[in-house]
Amino acid sequence: MDTVDRLIESTRELLWERGYVGTSPKAIQQRAGAGQGSMYHHFTGKPELALAAIDRSARELCSAADAELAAPGSAVERVTAYLRRERDVLRGCPIGRLTQDPEIMADPMLREPVTQTFDWMRRRLARVLTEGRDRGEFDASLNADATASTIVAVLQGGYVLARAAGSAEPFDEAVTGVLGLLAGHVVPDENS
Amino acid sequence: MDTVDRLIESTRELLWERGYVGTSPKAIQQRAGAGQGSMYHHFTGKPELALAAIDRSARELCSAADAELAAPGSAVERVTAYLRRERDVLRGCPIGRLTQDPEIMADPMLREPVTQTFDWMRRRLARVLTEGRDRGEFDASLNADATASTIVAVLQGGYVLARAAGSAEPFDEAVTGVLGLLAGHVVPDENS
Repeated sequence: MDTVDRLIESTRELLWERGYVGTSPKAIQQRAGAGQGSMYHHFTGKPELALAAIDRSARELCSAADAELAAPGSAVERVTAYLRRERDVLRGCPIGRLTQDPEIMADPMLREPVTQTFDWMRRRLARVLTEGRDRGEFDASLNADATASTIVAVLQGGYVLARAAGSAEPFDEAVTGVLGLLAGHVVPDENS
Repeated sequence: MDTVDRLIESTRELLWERGYVGTSPKAIQQRAGAGQGSMYHHFTGKPELALAAIDRSARELCSAADAELAAPGSAVERVTAYLRRERDVLRGCPIGRLTQDPEIMADPMLREPVTQTFDWMRRRLARVLTEGRDRGEFDASLNADATASTIVAVLQGGYVLARAAGSAEPFDEAVTGVLGLLAGHVVPDENS
């Protein structure tokens, strides 16, 4: 990794471990093994570094989701692959967690990628569900936009329940539940 | 309010505003208008006060939910009343938020009421859904336990999405979505 990469990765780790207010430029430099001059040569300061770190997490999250949601298969298969992907459930979502960081939520520049990530996820899932409905996989009563929001909420809420329980069990149950509910809107395949 | 009540309410407010680590015994006393001697006469210290504050929030949450879920009406009507209740969505859930407080999650005594609240909510909703299925309101494929976990996750995740968006809109959409999904399992009433 080059210095810029190390600075961004270190900021990512520190934001996760200590939150924005607990992340000092000094700590970022130490973890990255970079000098103060080097850090300020590449970034104007902690806000710009934090933005780069959040942007990177957001891009990773969206590109992982897109790989599953753009794969071949029926809408239900793709949504199932997305929901059932192996996750470190007790660790939680690197973007969802930022909504609990008051300094990040109070700064429009830092909040923007958090807002955008969830908007993107909801639209991406809505597109998969709309395609499925248009192909006749779902009955016409399926509300694609609202269901997409439900699916994103189930993941984020599943993390909350898992942390409360100290176990991934409620997360897995919530995913099983939403897939079971979605199955109620699946039109049986006439050829099978 | 008597002194004990004022101490508990002040702890509740401070836990919400500053988290466990940021809530000092001194600040609790000041907000409650109580002296140090009075506080330590009633409570052994900050952990016991925090436990009383968390217990009170948990009891309020469960009793509000129970009022809606034990009301007359069909299972769908009761679940709808629970999900559509007016909430300060951008403020969030006083219990769910504690899962993001590392000191509370690390202390088994303080974590216990958080764990219990979500367990109770899931079981309570599962009972409503099981009753509805047993009465023929839902088709036999409805997984009551998993759906109950989904509903609790939708609320908790809805708060996360609302904070990210700075708007209650994604919360409302997620609720609309899960109710629309549940409608796919409702057996049409033969008398209507």
